[in-house]
Amino acid sequence: MRVGFIGLGIMGSRMAASLRRAGHDLTVYNRTRATAETWAAEHGATVAATPAEAGAAADVVITMVVDGDQVRDVLLGPGGVAEGAAPGTLCVDMSTIAPSETRAIGAELAEHGLSLLDAPVTGSAPRAEDGTLTIMAGGEREDFERAKPLLEAMGALVLHVGPLGQGEMLKLVNNAVAAANAATLAQALVVAKATGVDLKALVAVMGAGSGGSTMLTLKAGPMLEHDYTTLFKLEHMLKDVRLCLEEGQTAGVPFPVAAATREALSAAMGRGHADDDFAAVLEAFEGLAGVRL
Amino acid sequence: MRVGFIGLGIMGSRMAASLRRAGHDLTVYNRTRATAETWAAEHGATVAATPAEAGAAADVVITMVVDGDQVRDVLLGPGGVAEGAAPGTLCVDMSTIAPSETRAIGAELAEHGLSLLDAPVTGSAPRAEDGTLTIMAGGEREDFERAKPLLEAMGALVLHVGPLGQGEMLKLVNNAVAAANAATLAQALVVAKATGVDLKALVAVMGAGSGGSTMLTLKAGPMLEHDYTTLFKLEHMLKDVRLCLEEGQTAGVPFPVAAATREALSAAMGRGHADDDFAAVLEAFEGLAGVRL
Amino acid sequence: MRVGFIGLGIMGSRMAASLRRAGHDLTVYNRTRATAETWAAEHGATVAATPAEAGAAADVVITMVVDGDQVRDVLLGPGGVAEGAAPGTLCVDMSTIAPSETRAIGAELAEHGLSLLDAPVTGSAPRAEDGTLTIMAGGEREDFERAKPLLEAMGALVLHVGPLGQGEMLKLVNNAVAAANAATLAQALVVAKATGVDLKALVAVMGAGSGGSTMLTLKAGPMLEHDYTTLFKLEHMLKDVRLCLEEGQTAGVPFPVAAATREALSAAMGRGHADDDFAAVLEAFEGLAGVRL
Amino acid sequence: MRVGFIGLGIMGSRMAASLRRAGHDLTVYNRTRATAETWAAEHGATVAATPAEAGAAADVVITMVVDGDQVRDVLLGPGGVAEGAAPGTLCVDMSTIAPSETRAIGAELAEHGLSLLDAPVTGSAPRAEDGTLTIMAGGEREDFERAKPLLEAMGALVLHVGPLGQGEMLKLVNNAVAAANAATLAQALVVAKATGVDLKALVAVMGAGSGGSTMLTLKAGPMLEHDYTTLFKLEHMLKDVRLCLEEGQTAGVPFPVAAATREALSAAMGRGHADDDFAAVLEAFEGLAGVRL
Repeated sequence: MRVGFIGLGIMGSRMAASLRRAGHDLTVYNRTRATAETWAAEHGATVAATPAEAGAAADVVITMVVDGDQVRDVLLGPGGVAEGAAPGTLCVDMSTIAPSETRAIGAELAEHGLSLLDAPVTGSAPRAEDGTLTIMAGGEREDFERAKPLLEAMGALVLHVGPLGQGEMLKLVNNAVAAANAATLAQALVVAKATGVDLKALVAVMGAGSGGSTMLTLKAGPMLEHDYTTLFKLEHMLKDVRLCLEEGQTAGVPFPVAAATREALSAAMGRGHADDDFAAVLEAFEGLAGVRL
Repeated sequence: MRVGFIGLGIMGSRMAASLRRAGHDLTVYNRTRATAETWAAEHGATVAATPAEAGAAADVVITMVVDGDQVRDVLLGPGGVAEGAAPGTLCVDMSTIAPSETRAIGAELAEHGLSLLDAPVTGSAPRAEDGTLTIMAGGEREDFERAKPLLEAMGALVLHVGPLGQGEMLKLVNNAVAAANAATLAQALVVAKATGVDLKALVAVMGAGSGGSTMLTLKAGPMLEHDYTTLFKLEHMLKDVRLCLEEGQTAGVPFPVAAATREALSAAMGRGHADDDFAAVLEAFEGLAGVRL
Repeated sequence: MRVGFIGLGIMGSRMAASLRRAGHDLTVYNRTRATAETWAAEHGATVAATPAEAGAAADVVITMVVDGDQVRDVLLGPGGVAEGAAPGTLCVDMSTIAPSETRAIGAELAEHGLSLLDAPVTGSAPRAEDGTLTIMAGGEREDFERAKPLLEAMGALVLHVGPLGQGEMLKLVNNAVAAANAATLAQALVVAKATGVDLKALVAVMGAGSGGSTMLTLKAGPMLEHDYTTLFKLEHMLKDVRLCLEEGQTAGVPFPVAAATREALSAAMGRGHADDDFAAVLEAFEGLAGVRL
Repeated sequence: MRVGFIGLGIMGSRMAASLRRAGHDLTVYNRTRATAETWAAEHGATVAATPAEAGAAADVVITMVVDGDQVRDVLLGPGGVAEGAAPGTLCVDMSTIAPSETRAIGAELAEHGLSLLDAPVTGSAPRAEDGTLTIMAGGEREDFERAKPLLEAMGALVLHVGPLGQGEMLKLVNNAVAAANAATLAQALVVAKATGVDLKALVAVMGAGSGGSTMLTLKAGPMLEHDYTTLFKLEHMLKDVRLCLEEGQTAGVPFPVAAATREALSAAMGRGHADDDFAAVLEAFEGLAGVRL
């Protein structure tokens, strides 16, 4: 398939490489052109001068950029994909943005005869490297089927999860659950400390049973050391939880534990942990309790 | 070792069998004597007429009964272990009761020259059968070392977690985390439903990534089916969360997510789910949102 | 009417004086007998050597003691009212205790042919002095009508609020609302401080409008000064909120904001404010936010 | 003083009338011009064709419109105040908008040599009629002093509360407290119902004591009747609480009870109460508990 790929950052460059390995023809665009040229030289690809050019050369255009403003810009701005792509071209946005933004962008693309899937990913750089990401796509079923060979080149678990925006929504819900589970863990450690429980034993017991979670596996160790080396920035997690709550409010559905978690993340941000890993939510509960692990 | 074993219920009978397999001599007591006699005929053991008799014949007495009142009764009541056991005998209570009760019972046993470990377990009947329970013990280190061969015959993960009562406390914290993670899951499913997300896809994605948890694995399926076949009764979970909060209050340490979870469990109980599995906490959030999965 | 009055503390002595002013005959009992004798000499009353004696001399016996154990003791213990009072005597407990205790005591009194009203009060010593307390009574309507002349001698607002225990329950709900409003106020002050709002202006504006409350009137000034001079001890408020949640759990009804407030009170207690006024709940939120007013 | 007044809605028309009564010269603008002409004929004023015209004729321009977009439009849009007003003119925005929007608009007005106060009000139409509103102003002290005679013509309590935006912020905090107190009241009523307490007695007792609040006075009656006749729309209250939380997040300060209240308001909105009075938050708690008052 002829694929346009826009955004060759840490994740995007690895995802595009998976597409090349699967034998697809790529035209790539990156804001910093040198990055695109280096990548193209290494992996074999055409470099586009504008997103419009990438769009003109492709059946499917994938975007993997930072936020909703950038997605809008490369798809609909001056020199954007919509200016170059032939009607019928499929856009697949794999960035993490608000579902409402996705739907607004989709409506505008439709006016140009272009369709849109939202297909955000979970999984870090190593899994992008291996092509084993989890990919959750929202949009028309037929568009999903069309993009599926590409998505399966990048991901191990590739799911169609509902209409446009639902990929993003699912990701927000997942992240809110992760944040809530991490906040629960942090509180449990503080309570255990204050009541004299051995913290390493607690972590071991929970891991072997009903208190286990991915967050326990990933964050208990760092929390015990107050080591907030960033895997996922607290301010990014805070943004995702906030977006989840915004979408919930629009739908008139409450998510109390996510709301409480947001406030704790906010308190940790106020203590200077915006750029730290969101495991730093622990600091909020230590402050509340006046207890240090 | 000469072991007294009191309480041959679903868990106790399997745990005692593990001790027999490991070659220990058992004197068993059960409130319903016929149960003890059947068990003794099958596994080989002496049947005691009273807890005192079991205590007199043992170096270590294990109790596995229903609640704090029963523990107190078999250890300190008329015909209880304390009446028969020689000074220096070690009691190991493996029931789940409040840490404060454990400590009170321990203090009374000490007046009789008896020492106490609290060693509650996590894991269900099959793991009791296999001798692969998780066992967390509180009490003096030397008492733990003395009981260790017995505990290791019953458990795969056996830990000394602090002074007397800390085994119980650790278990309460673990269960509160489990309940909170289950409540978070329930809320996420309701939010996902109301915002149009595919629920099975959500469960698959969370399971593959940061939203994963033991509760997701065990409870998501039942929640999606509103199938509350009891693995662990809601009212028992509610009791454990309440006890955890009580201990937290005594220590002056807050556990906000557990407090919120307790209220949700209470709301589910008010809807008639006391005897259902605690997955029925979902009903509280469905009621709050006015949304049915 | 012939009235037995048990418990001449700060509140009880003033309440009994109101009954004397209204012309009732009093037989008084106090644990420390000298207190009773001094009071009797001043106001005119017979001093009883035991609660039983006070019960024998009365149509209605009022108790105003510290907690449920004391209520049980003076009514049902050795030398208690039940030993002396003739069948048909009415007991009116004006102490603040758990509704479930009230009902249990009521059931035992009934076995002696005695009936019980629970009639806790709100209002402080000056209002006890003036006979302008608020009194909320639970029990049989006919018992209430019988006690009404006495209650109206002590209170300005006297209400029958439901069956036995409902006076206590109403008081617990009122106190939980007060605690929650105070916690909300404390949070608002911390948020206002962190966002640069003039705190005195905030208090003035709220007092003039929709943010106003009795708690604002009573606690905003002390909070701004971190002055926790005790009007109502934090640990007593914490006890009342806890009892309210316990009763709610028994009824299967959630009270989320009270549960959250309890955890904040618990955190303040952990910081050493058990004996301070419950305005010290502010300290928990200052700790959470890392912000000092 | 020469005053431009923009926005003659329910509140604005009454506030402008207060200014006329105090003898100020008014040039008025309203989007629907007929409204302005009717008002001017009745009260005596010049009608402007555009906000720019109103700005050109005034020393101080007051805006009282619906939201931040409208404020921006009449001040900075085509034909806006900034096009007509002489440098040094003072703008006073009395609408309720986000503090961050206020600050952004203030910065743009400064580029035109215009200064800005934010001066939102609390109090309903009758108090606008009487000139007894509460007015909280943010901005430079000297700008406040300049506007003070005008503000005092409209309000009984007029306060300078901090830098630009702090009037809005204070109002948001006040409204969040009001919403939280109303949510607490709703929960208390549900708990009281489920535990058998007489609800009218509860309301009376709370009103006489520590559980009292403006919300109790205004909303308890309507809640008991499920009468949600709109005084302040639920969706507007939800917006204010959301804005308060957004500002809190920006400052890194948590407001847990407001976050919980937002979710309850959201749940009530999802049940169809967006246009009802925010007393309808009761419906969320009735749904959670499965209890109807």
